[in-house]
Parts: sequence; structure tokens; C-alpha cells
Amino acid sequence: MSRQAYETDLDKNAANFQALTPLSFLPRTALTFPDRLAVIHGERRLSWAQVHERARRLASALAKRGIKRGDTVAIMSPNTPAMFEAHFGVPMTGAVLNTLNTRLDGPAIAFILDHGEAKVLLTDRELSPIIEAALKLVKTRPVVIDIDDMPAAGGKLLGEIEYEAFIAGGDAGYVGPALADEWEAISLNYTSGTTGNPKGVVYHHRGAYLNALGNAISWGMGQHPVYLWTLPMFHCNGWCFPWTITALAGTNVCLRRVDSRHIYQAIAEHQATHLSGAPIVMQMICNASETERTRFNHQVQVMTAAAPPPASVLAAMQRQGFKVTHVYGLTETYGPCVVSAWHEEWDGLDIEQQARLKARQGVPYEVQDGLMVADAKTLKPVPRDGETMGEVFMRGNIVMKGYLKNAKATREAFAGGWFHSGDLGVWHADGYIELKDRSKDIIISGGENISSIEVEGVLYRHPAVAFAAVVAKPDEKWGETPVAFVELKPGASASEAEIVQFCRDNLAHFKCPRAVVFTEVPKTSTGKIQKFLLRDKAKTA
Amino acid sequence: MSRQAYETDLDKNAANFQALTPLSFLPRTALTFPDRLAVIHGERRLSWAQVHERARRLASALAKRGIKRGDTVAIMSPNTPAMFEAHFGVPMTGAVLNTLNTRLDGPAIAFILDHGEAKVLLTDRELSPIIEAALKLVKTRPVVIDIDDMPAAGGKLLGEIEYEAFIAGGDAGYVGPALADEWEAISLNYTSGTTGNPKGVVYHHRGAYLNALGNAISWGMGQHPVYLWTLPMFHCNGWCFPWTITALAGTNVCLRRVDSRHIYQAIAEHQATHLSGAPIVMQMICNASETERTRFNHQVQVMTAAAPPPASVLAAMQRQGFKVTHVYGLTETYGPCVVSAWHEEWDGLDIEQQARLKARQGVPYEVQDGLMVADAKTLKPVPRDGETMGEVFMRGNIVMKGYLKNAKATREAFAGGWFHSGDLGVWHADGYIELKDRSKDIIISGGENISSIEVEGVLYRHPAVAFAAVVAKPDEKWGETPVAFVELKPGASASEAEIVQFCRDNLAHFKCPRAVVFTEVPKTSTGKIQKFLLRDKAKTA
Repeated sequence: MSRQAYETDLDKNAANFQALTPLSFLPRTALTFPDRLAVIHGERRLSWAQVHERARRLASALAKRGIKRGDTVAIMSPNTPAMFEAHFGVPMTGAVLNTLNTRLDGPAIAFILDHGEAKVLLTDRELSPIIEAALKLVKTRPVVIDIDDMPAAGGKLLGEIEYEAFIAGGDAGYVGPALADEWEAISLNYTSGTTGNPKGVVYHHRGAYLNALGNAISWGMGQHPVYLWTLPMFHCNGWCFPWTITALAGTNVCLRRVDSRHIYQAIAEHQATHLSGAPIVMQMICNASETERTRFNHQVQVMTAAAPPPASVLAAMQRQGFKVTHVYGLTETYGPCVVSAWHEEWDGLDIEQQARLKARQGVPYEVQDGLMVADAKTLKPVPRDGETMGEVFMRGNIVMKGYLKNAKATREAFAGGWFHSGDLGVWHADGYIELKDRSKDIIISGGENISSIEVEGVLYRHPAVAFAAVVAKPDEKWGETPVAFVELKPGASASEAEIVQFCRDNLAHFKCPRAVVFTEVPKTSTGKIQKFLLRDKAKTA
Repeated sequence: MSRQAYETDLDKNAANFQALTPLSFLPRTALTFPDRLAVIHGERRLSWAQVHERARRLASALAKRGIKRGDTVAIMSPNTPAMFEAHFGVPMTGAVLNTLNTRLDGPAIAFILDHGEAKVLLTDRELSPIIEAALKLVKTRPVVIDIDDMPAAGGKLLGEIEYEAFIAGGDAGYVGPALADEWEAISLNYTSGTTGNPKGVVYHHRGAYLNALGNAISWGMGQHPVYLWTLPMFHCNGWCFPWTITALAGTNVCLRRVDSRHIYQAIAEHQATHLSGAPIVMQMICNASETERTRFNHQVQVMTAAAPPPASVLAAMQRQGFKVTHVYGLTETYGPCVVSAWHEEWDGLDIEQQARLKARQGVPYEVQDGLMVADAKTLKPVPRDGETMGEVFMRGNIVMKGYLKNAKATREAFAGGWFHSGDLGVWHADGYIELKDRSKDIIISGGENISSIEVEGVLYRHPAVAFAAVVAKPDEKWGETPVAFVELKPGASASEAEIVQFCRDNLAHFKCPRAVVFTEVPKTSTGKIQKFLLRDKAKTA
């Protein structure tokens, strides 16, 4: 027998092949657990049967407005039921969901609406000032549908119909067109665009499906998690968790206001088992005052990206019932695609060692394929010595389809058959990668590379420091020198000399900041520190 | 923008597309947890790094023998390290793994070796009598490699080289050919062939990958399960669990002898968290004598297919720390593809009600697509009334590629775009399906359908009954009447009149057996009762 026997009369057909799509999770969960709690939002409760019906009504109402395969539907909303439903209702029609970053300003939103050519825009009342400004600037005005969410504060209605009325006009029995190809686009997520215009990252059904399962597998989530939405759903489609929670028949606890008080309240009241977020969410948990805290007695799994907590914070969190898993990814990788997988034997190490191990970005998700640290030009992997810097590269099914209408950027991002993350790091002997910096954040002083992340890591270990950012200041003699911007904890105090001395005690001297600026550190909507805003200030520091 | 924007310059490439294959789990787990325990087998211990190396050596050694893409490599083995490694090493070369049912006889094995055109056969010493007989009958003799497993009892070496020596000749750095298409065959599993010759069910990499994750998701498995191999790996590739356990970096506890004593010992000694099996495994657990039991203090998850336990057994198991999940599937669906998903609110019901709910086959796996009960001819779904009988149909990515070299059977199995299971059942209002019988096992008496499963369900509730099988006896007046074959528990006794009366107390009278035969009930290697052996006997009962 040649291999032909295994390829003869054994073709794909309707019985044995289905395009992968996370949309398949919703009817399955609604069939199996129709009465189970799907969404909690303030006083509101929705079952899985209700969410399934509402998503179909949304899809039907959009289809009646002419929305069809390959159209873009944008949404500007905090984590609300409408935002969750849009993750199913919009792609059900064959359209592509474009979630908008709620912290952007009018011109940025206008750019995105124009570039993505949104035909419909769903928008939360509270965010109407930004949208109103954006709509004055767009070349083509989309159909605007207001989400008049009960707990929204202020704002006004801008569109032609309110969301609930809109979906009431849809058909609860709606069935969308069959997905012809799992490579079709499901969503469009713009990068934060710290330099130049943002790029539109396109996700496909296959990748969203796999990453939805990948989250469950890599995080060891069981059935029926109670997921607290501290992570914005606009951010990489909430790292694909709307689809994960649906696959697991869990409960989504929405949260319009992400602050210490509401986080603790929701954990205690709804017995939340899981939450994710940027370091700012960790800070809210750690720095909560006594009056902001509500007691709870179960363990909460926390998945955090970007900078993991320093040892003292990690220890405090563990004592309080939070178990932290550190992950890493980019908009281009559907959110996290690398996890700092924990070894049980590390539980016996002291907390400083644990924190250092946990701070590493880690190893690929089970559903990711390749991960390497390599020379940025030759793509030759660096030695696994924990020292040699290189660029981080990924490849596999949870790397984006590409950038919308930007063939050049797509080509560059995928040059050599790997996705170029733009992040710099090292590869440890045990296969774990550790980020050292973004390419553009590295500081080159006297010909030596200084990792701003390394310096910040030391600053975070200082007990008075709440946030720290280190950027380059141009210097005639050294080329560049590091400058630290530090935001102190409420009530804490520290002098510049004290901070510098602390750095000298813990770092090679050439890496120590030459100046320390005490200030509120600017952060993006997703809690990332906006270093580009600090570079100008550093020049005069 | 037309949909073209989402399909322009956004093609698949090496950076963003990878063929799905469960083989990818092994290097990932070996990288992340190299020293973690992968396999326990008697006194033997293998880490994930070792298993990865051994699988590559096996692949390399096979490649050196000329094994290449599309070839078949067969294996006849209990659950041993070699059997586990073959699930990776064989398909790594591009070849297809054909696991042989160890309970078959020489002629049946010879038929399979010829039909599958195995080029290499790995065979365990203990099973050499069957293989010796088979090799005398085959048209083309494969290269035979002996597995001289330490704990094997008896038998002799038949081949040209022993497994350990064979893989020692392979290259630990072997890298196989890239998988060009996830639709390529990964394994070949023959049906039990109760009528005529067995059919060769072909699995592909995509389906094996998805079902491996599907097991983890549907069963709510976390990271690092300790999986006790009470299920034969030859059976549907151990329901894809070799790949699941690898993805989760768990531990495989091998078990050559599946009996009560060894099951309890392994659970206690290795803190096994999960096991699967046919009802016979449940019987071993439940009917174990005091001396066969070893105490343990943790909960063990048990996944069982075919008949779930009656209420009394279920209650006893729950008291002893076993939590039972009931699943259903066929060789053609990679093992289980339907799960009797549990609702927490059912915990409050009495044990009889729990047992009845659990006995239903359930709802599709998250990774499965369609499941319906429908008219066998028109494929029109039956009403969800829990009463109307129809055939069970599935479709989706965990339905086989088809039958090897049997286009006619493949075409018939997939007629109308659904896989025809041949099982009969009803559809309940809550979407759960419940099997009533195999088409060929239904008894038609006076024009009324009698489900042999229903009658057996009542018999199993009788305290003296260990195994029960009900088949049709031809009858001049009624067409057919039911006859019960009953195997009593050790030490238990019951009369025919008593059994019949018990049935009349619990069933419509026309469904009650007209005769009861007390005998050992014949079972297949996987614990299924062989009704076809009883039909002849029924004629004279």
C-alpha cells in the first residue's frame, strides 16, 4: 500500500469536517445549561439561553440593516452584556467585530472607524463625548446604535435607536450563513499606536477558537468558572475569554468600574474564581485600603500580563487568597500566547526566588507552536544562557491573520516565517524566555545595553514605589542615560538620593538612574505605562 | 470596503498557520516539564524528557527501516511505555499507527495486518501466541519487533530485534517530516466486527488534536492529572488520552493487569486522579473484595462509556471517593464525543434520580459539532419528547476520516452529511440524548419495540445481578420475545421466577423476559457484552 490508500475516498464532507469557530460554543452551552447564569451585571442576570437568544436577535437585527459577510461592526463599550453579546452576534452574521479602546480620544476613534470602514457602531451612553467628537471627524458616518446601560453615568444618546429596542426587532430564531472557511476574519483589534497610526490586527475564527481553548488548558480552568471582568473586553477581545467562558459554561461578572472596592465586592458576592488584567489591576488589589476590601474565603486565580508583581506584593497576594499566573502576549497573538508555567517544586523556594521565576514570561501556550529568542536580523536563535539578548519571535495558529489594508507591515511582521514581536529578551537554560525590553525602550549608555525593565524591577522592590518607568535621556558623553519616573504609594515618601542609593545597592552602577522624577506615571487604558510621553520630559530632567 | 479587504494580503504563512497535530504537545511538555514524571510502569519511571527522547529514537529507528509517510505500523501491546511512545514515535515519521486489540485471535489479527498492510509490527512477549498464529496466516509478513516488557508473563520472542535495542539504534535528535496537512491520517483502529470483517477506521491529526483537548475541556481536567490506564490504549487510541495527558503534562500510570487489586493499589500508591473504562472497570471497582481494596483519601474522577452504573452502585462509588462521568462514542468518533454533562442542582436529587439522569448519554463534546436523534431514512429529527425512537447521528471534527479501502461503507456511514451511528435512542426535552439500543439489538414483540437496554437497566437494579444481557428469541405468535442472560454476583443467588417478578414490578409486562438463563455473560476485550453470541442460545432458551 502506498500512502494513497490513506488519501483515497477519505475526503472531507459535511459529516466529518466543520470550520472551527468559537461561535459554536454558544449554542452548545445554551443547549446544555440553558438556565445557568451566564452574565451578572449590577442587578441584572442573564442565563445562557437568554444570551443565546439575545445574540441571535442582535445578529438578525444587524442582518436586517444589511450587515453581511466581511462588513465591520464597531463597538465602544465597557464590559457590559451588550459587549459580551457582540462577540457572538456580530460574527454570526459573517461580519467582523471591531472593539474600540474606550480611553482613546475622538480623532483616534475617527481614524479607526474610517480605516476599518465600520458600517454600524454600537456605543455606550457614558462614552458619548468621545464618540460625538469622533463622528464629527469621520469621512463616512456609520449607523449609530446607543447602548443605554443602566449603570452608565452621564453622557447622551447619539444614534437612531437604543440597543434593547434594536435587538428586540431581531429574530430569536436567526441562523447565520455557514462559515465557509475557518480562516475568515472574526474580529479587528487596533494596536495602541504609540508611534504613528494604529494598525488593524485581524483575527480569524480558527485562531479565536484555539486560543479560547488554549486559555482553559494553559490556566487549568475547570468547568463553570466565575470570571470577573477586570480586563477590558476591547483589549484583544478580552484575550479571547468571552469565548473561553462560553465553552466552559461559566459565569461572566461584568464590571463597569474597575477599582479596588468593586473588585473585592464582586469577588466576595459572586464567588469569582478567576480574573485577568494588566499590572494596574494587581495594584488595585494590593493597594486597596481596609475600607475598600471585602472579605472572602476562597482562592482566586489571577492571570496577569506585562510586569508581574515584585516579591513583597506577590507574597501579600498569596496570603490574601490570590494565586497569580503570569502570561505574555501581544495584540498580534490574540492576547497571551506565552505562560510562565509553574513547577510545583518551586513552591518550596523563598518568596524572592518565586517572584523572580514567576517574573519570567515563560513557554508557549499548548495551542501555540513556535517561540524563540533570536537575532533580529538573521533569526538565528540565541544561546539559552539567560544573558544573550535577542528579539522574541512566535509562530503558530494564534498569530494574527495580518494587518488590515497594510501589506507592507504584514510582510515585515512575518519576515522569515516568524512573527517579530519587537520585544527583546533572553532565553534561559530551562527554555523559559524573559523579556528585557521593547526594542525602542532599550537604553544604550556608553555602548552598554540597559534594560529599562530591569531597572524598573529594582525600583518596584522599593517599599515606597507604586509605579516606575525608566526611559533614556540623551547625553553628550554617554549617548543615553537612564532617568526614572516614580509614582509613590499613597502616604509614602522617599527622596531622590534614597532611590538612587537603593538602585546602586541592587544594580550595576552604570544602570542606575541619573535622575529621579516624582510624578504620576501616565498609563494607557489597559494599564501599560506610556513611556513615549516621558521621553520628552526626560530631556529636561 | 467589501469583504475583500479581509481576504487580501492576509494569507496563511509559516508564521501564522500550523497544521494541528497532537504530536506538538510532546516537545512543548518536554521543554516545560522535562523532569516531571511522565510514565509509571511497575518499578519503572520515565520523565517527559525521556519519553520525548525515546519517541524520537523510535521514529528515527523506524525511518531507518524505511518507514515513511503513509505506511502502517501496527502494535500489539497492553498499556506499556512502548505502547504510549508509539502514539508519538510512529506518526512522527508520517506513518499511521494501527493498535491491535489484544483479545483478538490469530485469524482476526492476520486479517487486520493484511488489510492495513502493516510494514512493521511491535508486539509484546506475553501476546506472542496470538501473533505467532497470525503470522502464519498473513500474506505479507511485517518486520517484527518484540517488546520484552519486564512484567510480562510467559510468551516468547518472535521478531528480529527487541524494542529497547531497536530504539537505541535511533537518533535522539530525530526530526520528522513536517506535517503538510492536518487531514493526514494519524492512526487506524479496527471496529470489533461483530458482523463480518472488521472495518479500518482512519483518524486524522486534526481530529486527534481536537479530541485530545476536548477530553480535557469536557471532563474539566486541570494541569498535571495522574491518569490510571484502566482503558486499553488499543481502544480508539485510548480515547485519545495519550495525547490529552501529554498536553496537560500529566502522569501516565500503566497497568498491564486491569483487576480490582491493581486498580486500588495504583490509586493509593500514585494518587491517581483520573481513570476511564468500560462498565467492566466499574464492576471491578465496585465488586472488589475487602482484601483487594487499598484505602485512599482523595477523589478519583471516573469516565465511563456504555452502560453507566445503576443507582446502588453509583451511590457506593460516590461514598468510596469515585466521581463518575458518563460518556458515549464509537470507534468512528475517536472514542467519546458525547457527555452526560452534570448539573450541580442535580446533586440534591435522590440517588435513583441521579442515576437515571447520569445514565443518559447526553450532549456533544465542546469540540464536536452536531448531534441528533432522527429518522434513520429521512434524517428528520425526532421530537424532543424522550419517547420517539430514532437513530443517533453525529457530525463534526471528531468524526473519522472514513473506513480504509472501503468507499462503500464510508459513503453509507456519511450518507446525508451525518455519521450514522447505528444506535437507537430518544431525545429528551432538555437536549440530552438517551440510547435505547443498537438497531440490531432492538426486540420487536407483537409489533411493539422493546429496548434491550431498558430491560437490562431493570435487571441491573436487582441486587444479585452482576451482568445482564437481553436478546430476542424468535416466536411464532409475537415475532420475538425477550430472553435474559444473567450472571450473578459471587455468592448471590436468585431464581428465574424471582427475576421475572422483579421485572414485572418495574416494567410494562410485554417487555419482561419470558425466560432467564443463569450463565457467565460473554464480554469483549473492552468489556462490551457480546450479544451476538447469545442469540443462538436464546433460540433454545
